[in-house]
Amino acid sequence: MNSLIVGFASLLLASPVAAATLRQQVDSYRAAHEAEIITQLDALIRIPSVAARPESLVAAASNLKDLLAARGFATESWPTVPGAPPVIFGSYAAPGAKRTVLFYAHYDGQPVTVSQWSSDPFVPVMRSGAKEVDWKSARPPFDPEWRLFGRAGADDKVTIVAFLAAFDALKVAKRKPSVNIKVIWEGEEESGGSANLPAVLRAHAGELAAAVLLVGDGPDHQSRTPTLYFGARGSLGLEATVYGPLRALHDGHHGNWVPNPAMLAATLLTQLRDADGRILIPNFADDVKPLTPAERAAIAALPPVEDSLRREFGIGGTEGSEGLTASTMRPALNVRGIRSGQVGADANNAIPVDAAVSVDFRLVPDQTPEHVRAKVEDFLRAKGWTVVSAAPDIATRLAHPRIVRLAWGGGYPALRSDMNSPAAKAVIRAAGEAAGGPVTVLPMMGASVPIYMFYDQFHGPVIGLPIANHDDNQHAANENIRLRNLWDGITAYAAMMGALGW
Amino acid sequence: MNSLIVGFASLLLASPVAAATLRQQVDSYRAAHEAEIITQLDALIRIPSVAARPESLVAAASNLKDLLAARGFATESWPTVPGAPPVIFGSYAAPGAKRTVLFYAHYDGQPVTVSQWSSDPFVPVMRSGAKEVDWKSARPPFDPEWRLFGRAGADDKVTIVAFLAAFDALKVAKRKPSVNIKVIWEGEEESGGSANLPAVLRAHAGELAAAVLLVGDGPDHQSRTPTLYFGARGSLGLEATVYGPLRALHDGHHGNWVPNPAMLAATLLTQLRDADGRILIPNFADDVKPLTPAERAAIAALPPVEDSLRREFGIGGTEGSEGLTASTMRPALNVRGIRSGQVGADANNAIPVDAAVSVDFRLVPDQTPEHVRAKVEDFLRAKGWTVVSAAPDIATRLAHPRIVRLAWGGGYPALRSDMNSPAAKAVIRAAGEAAGGPVTVLPMMGASVPIYMFYDQFHGPVIGLPIANHDDNQHAANENIRLRNLWDGITAYAAMMGALGW
Repeated sequence: MNSLIVGFASLLLASPVAAATLRQQVDSYRAAHEAEIITQLDALIRIPSVAARPESLVAAASNLKDLLAARGFATESWPTVPGAPPVIFGSYAAPGAKRTVLFYAHYDGQPVTVSQWSSDPFVPVMRSGAKEVDWKSARPPFDPEWRLFGRAGADDKVTIVAFLAAFDALKVAKRKPSVNIKVIWEGEEESGGSANLPAVLRAHAGELAAAVLLVGDGPDHQSRTPTLYFGARGSLGLEATVYGPLRALHDGHHGNWVPNPAMLAATLLTQLRDADGRILIPNFADDVKPLTPAERAAIAALPPVEDSLRREFGIGGTEGSEGLTASTMRPALNVRGIRSGQVGADANNAIPVDAAVSVDFRLVPDQTPEHVRAKVEDFLRAKGWTVVSAAPDIATRLAHPRIVRLAWGGGYPALRSDMNSPAAKAVIRAAGEAAGGPVTVLPMMGASVPIYMFYDQFHGPVIGLPIANHDDNQHAANENIRLRNLWDGITAYAAMMGALGW
Repeated sequence: MNSLIVGFASLLLASPVAAATLRQQVDSYRAAHEAEIITQLDALIRIPSVAARPESLVAAASNLKDLLAARGFATESWPTVPGAPPVIFGSYAAPGAKRTVLFYAHYDGQPVTVSQWSSDPFVPVMRSGAKEVDWKSARPPFDPEWRLFGRAGADDKVTIVAFLAAFDALKVAKRKPSVNIKVIWEGEEESGGSANLPAVLRAHAGELAAAVLLVGDGPDHQSRTPTLYFGARGSLGLEATVYGPLRALHDGHHGNWVPNPAMLAATLLTQLRDADGRILIPNFADDVKPLTPAERAAIAALPPVEDSLRREFGIGGTEGSEGLTASTMRPALNVRGIRSGQVGADANNAIPVDAAVSVDFRLVPDQTPEHVRAKVEDFLRAKGWTVVSAAPDIATRLAHPRIVRLAWGGGYPALRSDMNSPAAKAVIRAAGEAAGGPVTVLPMMGASVPIYMFYDQFHGPVIGLPIANHDDNQHAANENIRLRNLWDGITAYAAMMGALGW
């Protein structure tokens, strides 16, 4: 593939009549059902699907199962481990279809810090810019630049809503799906990286068999073009705690003598990486598989977004000197947070008792969480830290001047899969037809989705088909989905069910 | 002075009969009034004297004025600036007295982080070890190891209570004060370093005239011996903010490219100082006046406390290799707190929008806050930071890759004053007589009290006479005063009013 921006003109040659008709039919269905589709997304957001509220996750799963069953899907709810939300499976056989496509999404969302939100994360609000819109009283068609704010709306309940609306649109248009459809929707992606999903995939390998897996997670490219991706970085969380005195001490009387944990945490971080994003652990990149020429070409062909993003984000510089996507092809050590003592009006003249640092690593092929863990721990020991896994007792504290407690989160490796298989080419073609214009093809997404585990299971094409706008505030406060992205997503998903073939 | 630990035996030679009698009389008064004295301290703690509650500070001041007036003091309430708590002045003339002693204390306390306290900071609780004691139902004499927990109880309302009880004890014993007594009690020591006190001292220089000033702030030495100090480090607060993107961004998609403010804050801190407490700003120590041989001797003569403190604090090492007091003779940069993003269960996989760092500098003679400010700002500029004093607008953000906003707090210089004046010697002698045993004499306290401003005014002996236990958690949660320290403080203050002469 020479150009990864697939032009509309060339795509029309593939199957011009059917594709144009499908796009028109879906657009027509959507135009007649905009309020209904948004109402469905609004309803899903109102079921708070965060790990802190397990009962609500269970309710969300049950609701999704009902939505599939109502559309004629055979459905199952697969438990994972006690207390964890189930995996929802659905299947729909299309008479005469040769291929089966499996659609993945997750129905859980990131934790919320309510104080940082402009409105309740679980009571969706529509906004036009900063202005709230009473969309329920407005007459469609709605302004496609409106955005619906709510946790997990973009990441990624919107995928589920787009899937359902696409299915409904095909039905109204009396179009028989071109493929057998299977659905797997899980509720543990945002908490611990789908830790229980691999066992489910193994246990239900037969039911899940498919020719291609479409992963409905992640945002579209910053150029706002519909996007496909062929891999994703892996992830590994780490909570580190360093220790000062057993109780907070007046820093005038004890400063310069009693170790300051905030300073120890700053030292620890600057030992691990520099401010330009370079990880300082020797041999950390030993396991990193170089990009192929095709992957490098794909990155080089991406529309430039850096200048506009710098302005949008309000940043006067970047970490390193590469472009955004080239940067995210490397492993990363991100500091999610740091906390010690108090600041501002609450600050005491005291030496804090400890400092907590929250880190997540982003892994690239062929790094593994196990190797990264070992390299980090070995490196810290070499730097003089005593690494412990539980809160140190007094004897441990007295015996070691620099103690760091490491609590590793669930993690998983990265994947970059083949962009040149027949199924991959068919998906790229169908996506371009649905978009009626260029789509962006990424060798690997910077963010992590558990795409590796599907590959481990299927050893076949695993392709990301995201919907959400890149500026959706996913994982942060005020997460939002732009209506244009939802509308485009419905068309894309309809194409994958109704116009995919190879 | 060869030995700074003044032995009881040698002191007995000074005025054996009078001193022994005074001590016995005060002990006897205290034994008969233990519950009453604690009730007084309990009542003062219940008036929350923190900057966040200005109306309560005013109520505390008014109450203190009444307590002095009830004892026959001429009293005044001196306003400083609108909205700030007043300075309370009292004077009591002793017929025939040659000298006047001015007693300083502050009635305000540090801010509280209620969630960190075991009980309400403003509802005092007595504890024996960790066990709560119903002291109001207990029969005196109380166990002197009991401690009363509450904000500002040790730092330093206990000084006010000891002063009042000492005065009452002398009265009951029908002992005429040996000196004229003046009192200055202020309410802005813990918030911004007594910023408005210098103007009050100048405006009321005549009323405040005295031969010696006794500063009733700070804790006793860690050896638990009664303590005098002849100076204190200065102080300078700094709140620094560094900036990431305008909104929190998914770190998978943007990490390695968008600057991480937590990492920038860690970098900033490690540029300013190392984990061993060394300040890395070139020429930072240019203004530092070396210790005199007498001061060095005084420090060398201190009882060793380091091993026991290491065990008490649960620390396996110290910053640097000097002893505690030697360490606190140097300037210090303490990190009071650092805050960016979220940690633990609240952590999102996001790049935070900013990071806040709270620092306080401890100054030594002859550093000035102005010079320290200039050196820090020059150093940061040399390290590539753009130093601003207000939140940067978008144009500033886009123009500069590394912006740090510095908000300097009130600060003041340090003081080390002469330990060999006649008044100083008289105070050391009287303190030794009151203690009936060794007292500790420190050239300079590690903590900051606004002792420099008295010296600027009086150019005469300014001597610290603290009461609180060193392990009083002052400035932190669960501040507490040990009863033994309160009892010893009453005796010491009675000696300064009833047995001081030169």
